[in-house]
Amino acid sequence: MMESGDARPPVFNNRDPVYLQVVRRFKVDIATGRLNAGQAIPSRRELAALMNINPNTAQKAYKEMEDQGLIVTEGNSPSRVTNDGRILGAIRDELIAESVDELIAAVRPIGVPLGELLDIVKRKYETALSAAKEDER
Amino acid sequence: MMESGDARPPVFNNRDPVYLQVVRRFKVDIATGRLNAGQAIPSRRELAALMNINPNTAQKAYKEMEDQGLIVTEGNSPSRVTNDGRILGAIRDELIAESVDELIAAVRPIGVPLGELLDIVKRKYETALSAAKEDER
Repeated sequence: MMESGDARPPVFNNRDPVYLQVVRRFKVDIATGRLNAGQAIPSRRELAALMNINPNTAQKAYKEMEDQGLIVTEGNSPSRVTNDGRILGAIRDELIAESVDELIAAVRPIGVPLGELLDIVKRKYETALSAAKEDER
Repeated sequence: MMESGDARPPVFNNRDPVYLQVVRRFKVDIATGRLNAGQAIPSRRELAALMNINPNTAQKAYKEMEDQGLIVTEGNSPSRVTNDGRILGAIRDELIAESVDELIAAVRPIGVPLGELLDIVKRKYETALSAAKEDER
């Protein structure tokens, strides 16, 4: 998402503030390993250009990420993804929890029994994992 | 969603054709019991007004639902939700599968182990169910 080679600017929804959507994209990139612990990230100005957003919005997103401890900025060096394992683990847990909450909000009104739901998640996840292994060959 | 008392027209996304989004809303209403088997549904014209959509779009949605066997229209009577248990079961299964697919698409890149994912789903679903029971008291 934040690489210069990635020409397509991201699509934002009209529901959440853009700076929070930017923060969430960074969290996804960190949790999925597209961004590594300690890795330098673009400057605010570069990010604004890459994402096609207002520089003030980029500034607000970076401020939020600094406040949450996701990124660290020292002096005039570029900001970097934190090396703090607890924060990195918390990002991962937060994203998983969000996705599970969405699943439950969708299926609970349908009244699916827990055992059936767990079976479906298990079966589909195993299928997805073995499909990924096939691709690797 | 389709009741006259529900003044707020639904929000559609810009991704999928509107008539398919209408069909999906009917499926959710059927699967969640907001619409019952055999229940009469609004006329195409009423639906267009309720959902703030083009009458042609409402017509196209109803045609699609008739083709899929979701609704049945006999002569000049209002269209009704099917009584066919197999179709009703298939709607439910389809919606659950879609939601689980979304969960897996979100969490697989994070690399969460299956056992951990199942534990989180179980814990959160049990919490949601017991919160609902509390509300019923």
